[in-house]
Amino acid sequence: MGTSLDCQILRNVFGSERMRHVFDTRQLLQGWFEVWASLAEAEADVGLIPREAASRIRHATRSDEFDVERIGEEVRTGRHFLMPAINALTAASGDAGRYVHWGATTQDITDTGMVLQLRNALDIVEPSLQRLITILAGHVESSGHHPMAGRTHWQHAVPITLGFKFALWIDELARHEARIRHCRELISVAELHGAGGTLASLGADGLRVRAAFCKRLGLAEPDIAWHGSRDRLTELVSTIGMIAATLEKICLEVGRLSGNDIGELHEPRRKRQVGSSTMPQKHNPILCERSVAGCRIVRGMVPVMQGLMVGCHERDLASVSGEWLLIPQCLITFDGSLQYTETILAGLQIFPDKMLENLQITGGGIVSEAVMFGLAAQMGRTQAHDVMVEVARAASEQKRPLLELLLEREDVTAALTREELLALVKPENHLGLARELTDAVISRRADAG
Amino acid sequence: MGTSLDCQILRNVFGSERMRHVFDTRQLLQGWFEVWASLAEAEADVGLIPREAASRIRHATRSDEFDVERIGEEVRTGRHFLMPAINALTAASGDAGRYVHWGATTQDITDTGMVLQLRNALDIVEPSLQRLITILAGHVESSGHHPMAGRTHWQHAVPITLGFKFALWIDELARHEARIRHCRELISVAELHGAGGTLASLGADGLRVRAAFCKRLGLAEPDIAWHGSRDRLTELVSTIGMIAATLEKICLEVGRLSGNDIGELHEPRRKRQVGSSTMPQKHNPILCERSVAGCRIVRGMVPVMQGLMVGCHERDLASVSGEWLLIPQCLITFDGSLQYTETILAGLQIFPDKMLENLQITGGGIVSEAVMFGLAAQMGRTQAHDVMVEVARAASEQKRPLLELLLEREDVTAALTREELLALVKPENHLGLARELTDAVISRRADAG
Amino acid sequence: MGTSLDCQILRNVFGSERMRHVFDTRQLLQGWFEVWASLAEAEADVGLIPREAASRIRHATRSDEFDVERIGEEVRTGRHFLMPAINALTAASGDAGRYVHWGATTQDITDTGMVLQLRNALDIVEPSLQRLITILAGHVESSGHHPMAGRTHWQHAVPITLGFKFALWIDELARHEARIRHCRELISVAELHGAGGTLASLGADGLRVRAAFCKRLGLAEPDIAWHGSRDRLTELVSTIGMIAATLEKICLEVGRLSGNDIGELHEPRRKRQVGSSTMPQKHNPILCERSVAGCRIVRGMVPVMQGLMVGCHERDLASVSGEWLLIPQCLITFDGSLQYTETILAGLQIFPDKMLENLQITGGGIVSEAVMFGLAAQMGRTQAHDVMVEVARAASEQKRPLLELLLEREDVTAALTREELLALVKPENHLGLARELTDAVISRRADAG
Amino acid sequence: MGTSLDCQILRNVFGSERMRHVFDTRQLLQGWFEVWASLAEAEADVGLIPREAASRIRHATRSDEFDVERIGEEVRTGRHFLMPAINALTAASGDAGRYVHWGATTQDITDTGMVLQLRNALDIVEPSLQRLITILAGHVESSGHHPMAGRTHWQHAVPITLGFKFALWIDELARHEARIRHCRELISVAELHGAGGTLASLGADGLRVRAAFCKRLGLAEPDIAWHGSRDRLTELVSTIGMIAATLEKICLEVGRLSGNDIGELHEPRRKRQVGSSTMPQKHNPILCERSVAGCRIVRGMVPVMQGLMVGCHERDLASVSGEWLLIPQCLITFDGSLQYTETILAGLQIFPDKMLENLQITGGGIVSEAVMFGLAAQMGRTQAHDVMVEVARAASEQKRPLLELLLEREDVTAALTREELLALVKPENHLGLARELTDAVISRRADAG
Repeated sequence: MGTSLDCQILRNVFGSERMRHVFDTRQLLQGWFEVWASLAEAEADVGLIPREAASRIRHATRSDEFDVERIGEEVRTGRHFLMPAINALTAASGDAGRYVHWGATTQDITDTGMVLQLRNALDIVEPSLQRLITILAGHVESSGHHPMAGRTHWQHAVPITLGFKFALWIDELARHEARIRHCRELISVAELHGAGGTLASLGADGLRVRAAFCKRLGLAEPDIAWHGSRDRLTELVSTIGMIAATLEKICLEVGRLSGNDIGELHEPRRKRQVGSSTMPQKHNPILCERSVAGCRIVRGMVPVMQGLMVGCHERDLASVSGEWLLIPQCLITFDGSLQYTETILAGLQIFPDKMLENLQITGGGIVSEAVMFGLAAQMGRTQAHDVMVEVARAASEQKRPLLELLLEREDVTAALTREELLALVKPENHLGLARELTDAVISRRADAG
Repeated sequence: MGTSLDCQILRNVFGSERMRHVFDTRQLLQGWFEVWASLAEAEADVGLIPREAASRIRHATRSDEFDVERIGEEVRTGRHFLMPAINALTAASGDAGRYVHWGATTQDITDTGMVLQLRNALDIVEPSLQRLITILAGHVESSGHHPMAGRTHWQHAVPITLGFKFALWIDELARHEARIRHCRELISVAELHGAGGTLASLGADGLRVRAAFCKRLGLAEPDIAWHGSRDRLTELVSTIGMIAATLEKICLEVGRLSGNDIGELHEPRRKRQVGSSTMPQKHNPILCERSVAGCRIVRGMVPVMQGLMVGCHERDLASVSGEWLLIPQCLITFDGSLQYTETILAGLQIFPDKMLENLQITGGGIVSEAVMFGLAAQMGRTQAHDVMVEVARAASEQKRPLLELLLEREDVTAALTREELLALVKPENHLGLARELTDAVISRRADAG
Repeated sequence: MGTSLDCQILRNVFGSERMRHVFDTRQLLQGWFEVWASLAEAEADVGLIPREAASRIRHATRSDEFDVERIGEEVRTGRHFLMPAINALTAASGDAGRYVHWGATTQDITDTGMVLQLRNALDIVEPSLQRLITILAGHVESSGHHPMAGRTHWQHAVPITLGFKFALWIDELARHEARIRHCRELISVAELHGAGGTLASLGADGLRVRAAFCKRLGLAEPDIAWHGSRDRLTELVSTIGMIAATLEKICLEVGRLSGNDIGELHEPRRKRQVGSSTMPQKHNPILCERSVAGCRIVRGMVPVMQGLMVGCHERDLASVSGEWLLIPQCLITFDGSLQYTETILAGLQIFPDKMLENLQITGGGIVSEAVMFGLAAQMGRTQAHDVMVEVARAASEQKRPLLELLLEREDVTAALTREELLALVKPENHLGLARELTDAVISRRADAG
Repeated sequence: MGTSLDCQILRNVFGSERMRHVFDTRQLLQGWFEVWASLAEAEADVGLIPREAASRIRHATRSDEFDVERIGEEVRTGRHFLMPAINALTAASGDAGRYVHWGATTQDITDTGMVLQLRNALDIVEPSLQRLITILAGHVESSGHHPMAGRTHWQHAVPITLGFKFALWIDELARHEARIRHCRELISVAELHGAGGTLASLGADGLRVRAAFCKRLGLAEPDIAWHGSRDRLTELVSTIGMIAATLEKICLEVGRLSGNDIGELHEPRRKRQVGSSTMPQKHNPILCERSVAGCRIVRGMVPVMQGLMVGCHERDLASVSGEWLLIPQCLITFDGSLQYTETILAGLQIFPDKMLENLQITGGGIVSEAVMFGLAAQMGRTQAHDVMVEVARAASEQKRPLLELLLEREDVTAALTREELLALVKPENHLGLARELTDAVISRRADAG
């Protein structure tokens, strides 16, 4: 019977199966085993332990026979997080067992193992982010030209295009992509520094072992221990918090725009998914809602992680051990929202007619800026402004279309023909640089690709 | 030149003048002076110091001549937060100066002074919360009967009344009112426990002095020191965080409902406030927005305050001193949002016609539950359900009103007359217990009043 | 293969088995089943559905044969959180299946189910808190009289007793106990309000059904729906955050005092637990560290929960669904720290000799306040003060004991005899009201018991 | 009478004068004026407005005669944050006033103005971080060789050097320095996109105006509007949160190590600063404590800022306006802690004798790893390990020095001479790679410089 993230019900609302796999018990162990095997090999490389012993250890780590339940049970009854796994590997390594964990401290293994798991996690996150951008760019290509109301402060402001809205998301996501790439490089360092961080346990061979160890794992060599310097991992979690904020914004916008009051977009609906049987008008944007809830939980982990940076003396587990739980939960929950967002955007339903219809809600108010500029060219800016203030107020108070009121005014019709006025009140003629700015985002993206 | 909360510009967006006054420099000092005067008097009460000295000290604290700038400057150049004020009062007390701060430790003064300031702050917060409830109850009385769309998951669900929406807010605010009352009692304890909390500095007279001190200040006597036990103040800040969440929810709802896409409510607009000159259709709900921003900042202080509870050994300033800044900023910023919310609700613009209009957006979908129940009484629940799934889907796909489609079906017209169907599709006939539940909230409130 | 909270390894570091059980998949389902059965019975009570149907549904909920895996799988492939369970219960109820979930909305079931689970969770938390207090009171009784250094700002301030330190913790924990009791009452309300909160789905019978429903569940009846009013649950989580801060403070203090530099307390060590084989001097306070890490994670959930209060319109799952994950994880993680704290305090190792030894670290500085008071009685306060400043500075600079330096001064020996001075420098003679304040806490506790 | 950050007393505990200056009311205005002047000049550059008008506006912005109080008062009584400043500049610009703010929207000015202020803020932060590193590197050079106890889990683990401890801090700070440099570049973009972000207000000239505008301000040109994309500013605040965590860790460590129980380091004390007169043994590390409290408040702003990223539609002030308060308060409070940390490290008192003394606390336990390795070379690893477990346990139980017990054992003395054993128990002979790792950090730093 699972609980919370592993609960058979809740795990299908939050998190993703693929990321749960990255952080499941076996992968946790496997990460540690990889580190121990590489350590032994590195020690063999510099002649510290017999090559044969390293081979035996490597071979042992490949076994599928480790009794995960038993290791877990020993963690429960003992007080050491890693010792049961050390013991299991030692036993499986036969004579070479005495060389398992040679010269290392617990955190050397757990830190490097975490890095290996995170590398796998980012193998999922990075292409997912790229796919989001590609999907959005595809929508820009196919449906980006549709005009719609640009809304600021919940009010209709000026017309924009759907492509412009998507380009804003792409622009933000592209920076996140760069951040994740940077984080990946930043965190890809190994840890091998012994009890107090001075690697005293390996004597004079320490640096050579560390170099060989890092090389074998494909990880960079740090200048110094990071047992108590957690800023690299924290930058990753902080970055994920920011990406979660962006996903949350996107999913909330889709959800909002899918409401009956707006109805311009909708997350993909399934055939025969008619909401509830008694409220058939309802098509709850449930994917959006779940994604948002996940993002909020993820964001809540950022300050905790930043707080865990504040360790005591050379290091303490009151800080570091919190990461063991927080980082997997962060990545798993985040990836759930990432997957939902991809599903939402990939199957996004777009209703251009409704967008056009909504552009009329303000009775032309949304283009009053454009009309004023048109009049200003004829009658000067000050007079144009005064005219528009009057007309707009009347339109709002009398709930009549702007065009009608404009056509009733002699000063207006003296300045502009009916055709010119008709052109001015068309939202699609007041899109400003929506296309150019959208193109700028798309072409930077193409350059980067 | 002020900065941030005191910036001449920003302070008019965030926070309130009345609450800034409660926590300004002079009130901070005045709080301490009140504590010192009461301490001296209490010590005179038990015969520890001369009555005359206590009178001199009390008299000195009433002076307006303290050089606040100079005290501040001494804080800046020295390293002690309180000593410059002690010195100033000592100097002003003449011969009695030697009895100033007698037997107390710094935190006895700052803690008790903070309690006195908070008592003043809650004198503002409590009646403000009450006024919010009274204003909302007034709206329920005068406009609460208007039917409107109840929205869940951003979708129209079933009809509700405006009064029902307000009653939900009242219900939540009334619990907050009780919480604040409880917090007021909880925090109204004095601190007088000397350097290590054992009050060793006052010898055998300690308990008697403390009793007299508390009595004079009208504060309860704690069982033991709370230099390092900050849960009382933290409960207050946590509670304010929760109230901020409620205000944020209310102001966001008013803002959302004021958007051109919905247009059912609006924060009060000023005469001649026609948005911007070039976008006359815009009436930004700026009070809502400012209130929400303030609430978010306030909520962010809760985890900081809970973190400051985790002090070191008997006490340390790395935790406690953070409160000195955080608590005033919390109350000041919160009160800004509280004031905005009162202004918004007191002058709330209500558009019942638009509510009725919006009830038609789903073409009757919002009442399909009601129609199904009506049909079920005639044709059984299963068949009624199947009919409604078909009709609702058709209405949605063909964008035709539910009623039209119902009237076209023989199985429906065989079961119900046109008049019966007309009654069933009226949203105001499907309000359920909206009135009863609203009344329950209002009458509990009346009982409490 | 479990992950994170359910990972076979991590779950033995964070959280508790007993609380995982409260929130496991089967209990989640069982909570919902209990709600559905009680709803059917309540509806039978008021004659809305046949009594026989209610009995069938109740009987069905008692079955052990629900296929949890399958329900979970349906949640995964569908988009509705509750429907698979509804379907399962409907199927198991035979003919009565059509009455399952009658008139309810999803959140009626999930909210009330959550309350039932929380009631079980608090059945664990409340007595645990009480046990912490009882354990501490026992230590006060048996070892509370030992004098030790009171430390403020990391510096030795004045002597206290170990009992005084414990009484401070008891005082804080006792307030938390009252808070949890209050929260239990606060959250013990049912939810039954239908789609839009107006209970329209139950027609005129709504209020009677709700009354019967609440009565059967032993829960209070709310005045109005709380689908979108989450302050009750939020108060509980905020309170747990505060208790976590207290546990964190306690465990950090035990950890700090167990360091080789102080060595006055230690969490229970197991026989033959000699740290690591190569660092036998080490006895890591691993229980303290794990408890602290858990508390920090728990505290991080408070702002998330307060943020989830800010829902949209009548309700949305972007807010509420986050609780489904957050609340179980909060309680599970918290209970892990609670259990650790109980183990730590129950088996706490106390080293009174080391406390006495440490009282000498300042060479008498810790009692200089006492000596000054003693001298003041003979030579006046001002002169006594000046003498002590000189003596204390000399003691500090020359690293010589205060007593030695005092005995070398004629003005001192003229005022006080050697015996008197000996008494004054004894820390145990300068404990102030440590005993009285400790007793006040203990006796209030006894009164409450 | 100031309040909170501007309170004459609190502002001398939190924040810094230099950073308050960067964000004071006049600088806020000056930032906007600079933006308006540059906008007008850019518009003149492309021929949109007369060159003369741009010159008049630029000239007007240089005036010292703006009535800040009055502008603030108009903000208070009006509902627009920027309009009073626009009006003031318009009035001061005479005929050119009509060109003030031409084509811009409020947020174009406030966003770009914020960037200008932040550039000034980072002009303070960057060199401060560099100075911290330089100061620490200086300590490494002069005092870095002192051996001291490395402490993990609050327990003595193995010997390290003071230089190694400092190198760990340098390593982390150097990454922060790189982060801040990156943030500076990231945020140095202008905003000029008009009401809906499409720059429709500037017609076809929009892109050219924007290019000229950015060039004049020395800011990069964004691809698209960032009115609603706040990730750049959020990355800065998140980074500052992480740096605050590092400063907090450093200051807490200095504070902890300055306690009477350890006494190895101390923040600079002033002459004649002998703590309190009655507790002369006390030298509270008050700068450390204030710095830490400030850092905790700063860290609390990170989640708020990340939350403000989640705006609504194209943009809303409920999110963005929160930055106006939060960012200045973040920088001001942070810089206070930064200044304190510099003062603490620049004047750091180092007590090498006490470090040596403390290395003896475990009676040699801290070097048992080294002794085991020495024995292993003679008697094999297994036997050496068994010997050391026995000896270490005996040393701990009997509280006798390791060396004494070693010399009593024949198996030991048969393997190693007294001189060899003496060398093995010297902590300074068991420093591992402390020097090499320290050097690696220092020389990377030198390369970077």
